[in-house]
Amino acid sequence: MDHNIHEYYETAIAVAKEAGEVVKDGFYKEKKVDIKTSFADLVTETDQAVEQLIMSRFSSKFPTHKFIGEETVAGGKKCEFTDDPTWIVDPIDGTMNFVHGIPHVSISIALAINKEIVVGIVHCPILDTMYTSMKGQGAMCNGKKISVSKISDLSQSVVIIEGGNARSGNEAKTKSNNHLKIIQSSHGIRAYGSAAIDMCLVARGQGEAYIEYGIHIWDIAAGILIVQEAGGVVVDPKGGPVDLVSRRVLCASSKTIAGQISAVVEHIDLERD
Amino acid sequence: MDHNIHEYYETAIAVAKEAGEVVKDGFYKEKKVDIKTSFADLVTETDQAVEQLIMSRFSSKFPTHKFIGEETVAGGKKCEFTDDPTWIVDPIDGTMNFVHGIPHVSISIALAINKEIVVGIVHCPILDTMYTSMKGQGAMCNGKKISVSKISDLSQSVVIIEGGNARSGNEAKTKSNNHLKIIQSSHGIRAYGSAAIDMCLVARGQGEAYIEYGIHIWDIAAGILIVQEAGGVVVDPKGGPVDLVSRRVLCASSKTIAGQISAVVEHIDLERD
Repeated sequence: MDHNIHEYYETAIAVAKEAGEVVKDGFYKEKKVDIKTSFADLVTETDQAVEQLIMSRFSSKFPTHKFIGEETVAGGKKCEFTDDPTWIVDPIDGTMNFVHGIPHVSISIALAINKEIVVGIVHCPILDTMYTSMKGQGAMCNGKKISVSKISDLSQSVVIIEGGNARSGNEAKTKSNNHLKIIQSSHGIRAYGSAAIDMCLVARGQGEAYIEYGIHIWDIAAGILIVQEAGGVVVDPKGGPVDLVSRRVLCASSKTIAGQISAVVEHIDLERD
Repeated sequence: MDHNIHEYYETAIAVAKEAGEVVKDGFYKEKKVDIKTSFADLVTETDQAVEQLIMSRFSSKFPTHKFIGEETVAGGKKCEFTDDPTWIVDPIDGTMNFVHGIPHVSISIALAINKEIVVGIVHCPILDTMYTSMKGQGAMCNGKKISVSKISDLSQSVVIIEGGNARSGNEAKTKSNNHLKIIQSSHGIRAYGSAAIDMCLVARGQGEAYIEYGIHIWDIAAGILIVQEAGGVVVDPKGGPVDLVSRRVLCASSKTIAGQISAVVEHIDLERD
């Protein structure tokens, strides 16, 4: 089957912009907040409304396409990732920021065909920044081409590493040990609270790497293409190619830095998406 | 002696704006970077040039005032904090961000009289954001009044906690333990790489608290007044009033949250400024 990737790309941008207006409206209002897997894993009415909006736009325009959305899966639908054209959507990545009035919130929209990401959009409506990428066409921020940092050694790197929302078991403890190991071997760490934005920051050279355990396919699908198209590498933290449903990701401005981070951290195995 | 605090305040804003242009110029150029106390403690020509500029403006306008500046102290001058009117200046807070092209960089200017901060300015020239405060007059961001978050329990809070630039001894390890303890008892952590900006984010309600060990008087002097004037509290992490030269600070949207953080972290004693 022939695919008009340009049409998918343009549609994704238009849908992201429309969704961005809804997110912006919600950001400045009182929020109704519910708890999901832990007291630090939240969802709001806006997450759900934005996902419905995005899903309805894609299903009316591309009725044969599949859909994986964070809140649909949280609502009980299985995450089925097949070779079919599949829109992978996080309506608000950085819900915690959204709830706290912190501007690092994004809408992440990716299209996978044969399990390969061909379109990736990360729109940050409060920061007024949109990252866009199409397979083979480079990555852009607000229409301007972006590329990763030229730094190629971990000791000279800033690494983005989040605390995440796990609050029980060994996951938080292992993450904190990794946090220390990365601090000791790098220029420092940063944490902005949105996986999608973190990846885009690596793509535009504001930091050299990002590693996270516990994320889901909708957090990283768009960001993966944006980092790759900006000249960066995205791998499984244990080594080897990134696995979209393995709930972990490591991206960096160079293969060397990715390898150095992979070697210093302790790896965490999580239930797959 | 009578002090015209309004004049000091207006002068500080004008000097911060002038310095901001120099920082902005430097941000987009190739940088000459030197190392200070560790491979993660950096200084650039711009830090030094901006400090010289700020110092010369204040000393020509207020010749009897004293001056404490990060780079002057790093250059060997003793940090003498007396009751005299003293300008306390960090020409670039977030030098690591500056070096990496990350926009969270700020110029921090405070005036202390009888060891009490009466003017505090944090100017972020790349983010185009200026925080201003005068004792008793509230705190503002780009001319609009700001106030701290209304959240008053740690379990509902976002806490800003940095990795810092210590790379040896137990300091980094204790910080990472604290990082874990705060994650487990809060909504999550953030790290932006500039103490002065971190404090201003608490002041404007983008996060409920900020704790750091290892900072210096010039990193926090302006931020302290901005947080207090925005309705927040600033204390010594061990409890009791903040001590400007003790190299540690804890600020929060409420006394309760400050107390909860103070109770979960392990305290670090550092050589005083």
